[in-house]
Formats: sequence, structure tokens, C-alpha cells
Amino acid sequence: MIHLDANATTPLLPEVLDAMLPWLRDGFANPSGAYASAKLARKAIDQARRQVADLIGAEPSEILFTSGGTESVNTALHSLDRLTGEGHAVVSAIEHSAVLRYAESLQREVKLAPVDADGRVNLTAFAELLDGAAFVSIMTANNETGVIQPIAEMRKMAAEKGLPFHSDAIQAAGKMPIDVKATGVDLLSLSAHKFHGPKGMGALYVRKGLRFMPLLRGGGQEDGRRSGTENTASIVAMGVAAAFAAKPDYGNLDEMRNAFEKKVMEQVAGVTVNGSLEHRLPNTSHLSFDGCEAAGLLILLDEAGVACSAGSACMTGKQKPSHVQLAMGIDEARAKSSLRFSFSKLNTMEQAQAAADQVKRAVEKLRRIQGSGVGPVVVYSP
Amino acid sequence: MIHLDANATTPLLPEVLDAMLPWLRDGFANPSGAYASAKLARKAIDQARRQVADLIGAEPSEILFTSGGTESVNTALHSLDRLTGEGHAVVSAIEHSAVLRYAESLQREVKLAPVDADGRVNLTAFAELLDGAAFVSIMTANNETGVIQPIAEMRKMAAEKGLPFHSDAIQAAGKMPIDVKATGVDLLSLSAHKFHGPKGMGALYVRKGLRFMPLLRGGGQEDGRRSGTENTASIVAMGVAAAFAAKPDYGNLDEMRNAFEKKVMEQVAGVTVNGSLEHRLPNTSHLSFDGCEAAGLLILLDEAGVACSAGSACMTGKQKPSHVQLAMGIDEARAKSSLRFSFSKLNTMEQAQAAADQVKRAVEKLRRIQGSGVGPVVVYSP
Repeated sequence: MIHLDANATTPLLPEVLDAMLPWLRDGFANPSGAYASAKLARKAIDQARRQVADLIGAEPSEILFTSGGTESVNTALHSLDRLTGEGHAVVSAIEHSAVLRYAESLQREVKLAPVDADGRVNLTAFAELLDGAAFVSIMTANNETGVIQPIAEMRKMAAEKGLPFHSDAIQAAGKMPIDVKATGVDLLSLSAHKFHGPKGMGALYVRKGLRFMPLLRGGGQEDGRRSGTENTASIVAMGVAAAFAAKPDYGNLDEMRNAFEKKVMEQVAGVTVNGSLEHRLPNTSHLSFDGCEAAGLLILLDEAGVACSAGSACMTGKQKPSHVQLAMGIDEARAKSSLRFSFSKLNTMEQAQAAADQVKRAVEKLRRIQGSGVGPVVVYSP
Repeated sequence: MIHLDANATTPLLPEVLDAMLPWLRDGFANPSGAYASAKLARKAIDQARRQVADLIGAEPSEILFTSGGTESVNTALHSLDRLTGEGHAVVSAIEHSAVLRYAESLQREVKLAPVDADGRVNLTAFAELLDGAAFVSIMTANNETGVIQPIAEMRKMAAEKGLPFHSDAIQAAGKMPIDVKATGVDLLSLSAHKFHGPKGMGALYVRKGLRFMPLLRGGGQEDGRRSGTENTASIVAMGVAAAFAAKPDYGNLDEMRNAFEKKVMEQVAGVTVNGSLEHRLPNTSHLSFDGCEAAGLLILLDEAGVACSAGSACMTGKQKPSHVQLAMGIDEARAKSSLRFSFSKLNTMEQAQAAADQVKRAVEKLRRIQGSGVGPVVVYSP
């Protein structure tokens, strides 16, 4: 199988699994214990916290471990909601559902910052939404298109109004440099499995000095900011994955994605690349195929051993056009003909080339099946 | 090391780790994907859901996976809080901090049901607290003393008033049979790492037909009841651990614990067993040692290679007498001289005997250090 769905999840790096295993075997002690084996676990967690902090230019004390991106995002919004006064929340129209669904559940209005056709937040509209706002949450890079947002500018505009700022950097980490001191964000969410760490593990950056209210309460772990027995193995794994992600060699992602995209564009007619080409993660290629239902392409590509997705993994199978594409002004037909191909560091150039060939075959086959003049045959996945 | 702190955490069963590994290697696909590898992950999760359901007599659709016991408990209380009307919450005075701290954070009064000297909830007092209540949360078995609560009776009393009932069964699972249909509880919390599953994985039973409100929101996983990419490896592991826990051979836990306790009582003077002997988990021994500071014993036992705890793991190092013991009317001096020894299925009879010998040595040494007439020398852990 050629896995080109890295924005949905990535495989564990072999080094990450190796680092994890001792803590799934002998190193099982509860880190809150008073005995020697517990203290070893505590020390390993401290090291992982430094590694995750280093990935984003934070201090270890500013990092708390969570069960994943959704919990990180929900916790950030919960804390902002409880500790800010009246006013609406400002989030972009293209946030992940972890932001959108949680924000909607709050007892305050949520205003959506629109994006331009290239998938970037419109800064004029954003500025207007800040009047009377209580806090802001804007993603660093979009999960579907890979488009990178002007976080530093937006955070500066929010700070001028005294508004705290959270950024969902779940898709950005490991694919572009992140520096919380440079952007100045107050809260930032990470998920380990998006950069070759394990599922069920995330982190939340909380700027030193920021008032914070926990979502999960109990035994008082993570300095009272996130209760629950520490998942030593996965925390250690996230630390090692972060250390790999922090290495400044993003070149290959870029090369693979570009080679794939170039070959598809050369071989297939009627293909559009969605989103900004200039401000885009190096691993993501979001393409629309004229006259092809994405659902049908997904089936044909799956049969050919290529895994990718329509919209985000979370939207797959829901048979509705992506809110991200609709926000970009992409019409429904084109939105429903879009696929996301996303590379991880464990993909190869050979896979990129082979996948492009399979895309060509799948598109030709689907267009042949659909014939001409009868409109697209809708081949829904079960 | 002899690990007698199973109520803090247990090692993975080798079979559980074996079941987990394929999903940490090739089986990494996001279960929400539309391709073949994702569907395999989805199928594995379905099987684990059945295994966890079987452990407690539930149906698979009544189980949702969480990141652990704290999240399960917090989610249950969140849902009850949001979906019941006015009135106070009734919880026992000996609940785990995941219940107590979350309940305290709610915008409603919390009334604590007292326990008798044997550590069981006083049913007369409990009945009185139900007047004007909105919901109830009582643990199935206590984490410190192992005392088992009369859940079926209490749930029946609550049901007569129309009050929904959550039970934290985190310490009970794998150590005693649990049957949600027999007790009739509406919600029940589980944590995998307490029964030889992985840390960072839990489950919440939600009775079919019960109104439910999620705590974590986003991609809509777990039928919208718990968002976040499914942690396939740990879910599969919890399923296998549940299948082992469901096997009706609790005999050995009982034998090990009893042999240990008998030998300690025979060899050491001034030892008290705390909590009901009749209604007690088969693996837990909660002992007070006259004139010995638990903190000092912990250090000596750690040096001798025996891991146990004072109070719960979550309380260790906090230098205050346990709220559980204080609720049982145990005075502060005795509470501070108490240790919890808790066995797992991976302990051996030889360990039970050897640990009893080490306890004898540690108590004798501490009493010698402390001398007579000078009062206990307080040896705090660092």
C-alpha cells in the first residue's frame, strides 16, 4: 500500500516504537509512585516534555500532555471560554471540527473569519471581527488544503485588542517550523500521530503566566493542569517523534509532493490544485478532478493500493462537500471531485511516482465509466 | 522488584502487548479512512468493543472508548450535570479525586455520603441525601482500601427517586465480576491499565436510551460521543485485557493477598487491617503499622525492592492523611501509618511471602530508628 494520507495519520517511526517499548514492558510503573521505578518513568516524561517544548520553541513547564489533538484543542477553548469575559469567539471558517464543534457548544456566540479563494484568512474581515471579541482560535495550517495561515500577523492584531490567541498547529508540526515565541500565541495544540508519534497522545502549549483552567480534573497530574495517570510510553514516544520532527530537513516532503503533483498535472487533464501555492505545507496536494466524483476515485485508488482521502479523514464517508472548500468559494461539484494526497517522511519518491500513475488510471477509468453527457456516476463507498 | 501497587497500575499482560504491536506497526491507518487498511482498524476496534462490553455485561453499542479513567469519570459527570435539572450531586466521601475534583468544579452543590468504619457507604445517610438530588456517583470498589460498595442497593434507592447513577468501577474491573444489567447503573467508568491493559485508555458504559452529552467534541468519532482519532493499538489492547479480566479465576489474587496479610500479621505486632474484610477486593491489603510513619516505610521498602503506596498513587508525596481513611474515622496518626499493598495477576505466591518478610524488616528497622518515647521520626520522601 502507498499511504498518502499523512494528514489523517502517520506511521510510527521505527525509532519512536523502539523508544516506546521499554515503557510498555518493564517500565510500567505509575509515574506518581514513590518508588524507584516510578521515578524513572517521571524522569523519562521530563525528557519528553523538553523534546516537545524544543519543537515549538517553548519551555518545558509550558507543555502539558493530553490524549491527543482533540483534547488539546477542547482544553484550550474550555480554558479561554471560562477565563475570559463577555464577547464572542473568533475562529476561522476552515478550522478543524475539534475547534468548530467545541466552540459551538459554548454559551457564547462564535464568529467565523472568512478565507479568500486561496484558503487564507482574510485579514480585513478578521480585523473587523475582533471588535467585541473575547478570544481567538486560528489554525496554523489547514488539514485539508495544507494552506498556512498568517498566524503572527493575526496574533498581533488580536494582542492589540488584548485578546488571547490559540492556534491549532496539529497539521503544521513536523511539516514547517513553529516558534511560539516568534508568533506570540498564548496556547497551541499538537497531536503526536500527525508527526510519526502514537495515536492517543497530544500536547498543549500554555504560555507562562497565562491564566489556565483544566478540562480534565482528578489526581492533579501535569501540575494540576491535566489529571489522569501519565501514559509514559506514549509521552516518551511523542518526545522522540518531536525530536525527529524538529530536525530541519523538510526538503524531501516537498520534493515528493511536487514530483507527484507535477506528474499528475502533466498526465491528467482537468486537474486543479486547490489553495495557495505559496503558503502551503510541503506535504499536501489537494486536487480537484473535473467530472469525477471523489468517492469513486477513492474506491478505484484503494483497489490500486493508494490510500488518500476526500476532505479530512474525519469527513470521509459523510457524503457532504467539505466546509473548507465551500469557505474558499469552491463550488459544490468541484468540492465533491477533490482528493487530498498528503505525504509523510516515510514515503518515497518511487511511491510518489507510482501513485501519480495510479491517479491517472483511476481518473481515466472513472471518466470512461461515466461516459459523456450522462453526468457523473456516483459510486459511494459503503 | 516486587510490584505490589496494582491499584496504581498493572503491567501489560504479554498477550496484550502482542495484540497491540501490529497496530503500532503496519496497522497504523486512521480508522476513519475509506481504504482497506482503515477498515481493518475499524474491525479490530469493533471486536475490542465487544470484549469490553462482555466484561461488564453490556452491549457493544453501550461502550465508548476514552483516554482513561479520569476522562471516563469526568465525561459521565459532565453529561449528568448538563442533562439533569436542579438539585445537588450525591457522591461518596471516599470517591477517587477524578470524581471529587470534577464534581467540585460544577455549578451545583455536592453532598458527600458518609461511610462507616468499615469503609462502606452508610445507606441510611445515603437515603437522606437523595431528597432533592439530581444525580448520584458512587464507586464500585475503593482504590485505597479495596472495600466494595453496595452498588445494586444504592442504585435501586436512587432509581426510586428517578435519579441517574454513575459508578466508577475502575478499581473493581478485573478483580470482581461486574454486571451492569444486574446492578442497573446508567453509566460506569473503566480504565485499561488497572487490569493489565495500556495507560491512556479507558471506556465509559452508557446505558442504551440514556441521554448523553459528550465532553470531547470534534470529528464525531465513537458515534459523536467521544471525538478524537481512535487509538487503535490501545483499544485493541484494552479489548484483549478485558477478555483476560473476564475469565472467572480470581482465586490466585485472593490467595496471594491472604498469604501476605497472614504472614505480616503473624510476624509484626501492632498491625491493623483497614476496611471491611467481608466486602473487599481480593487483591488489596490496607494496613496500619502502629508508631510507623508510612513515608519512612515506603523508603525502606523501596530500598528492599518492594513497591507499594501510602494512600493512592495520586496522593503519594502529598504528605496528608488520606480522605478515605479520615472518612472511615481513622485518626490522623493511624492514617499516616498506613500502606496499601495491591496484587496483580502477574504477582506470585513467592513474591507475596518475600514481601511480607521485607515488611517485617522495614517495620522493625523504622521502630528501632524511632526508638521509644521520642515519637515517630518523620522520614519524608524527597
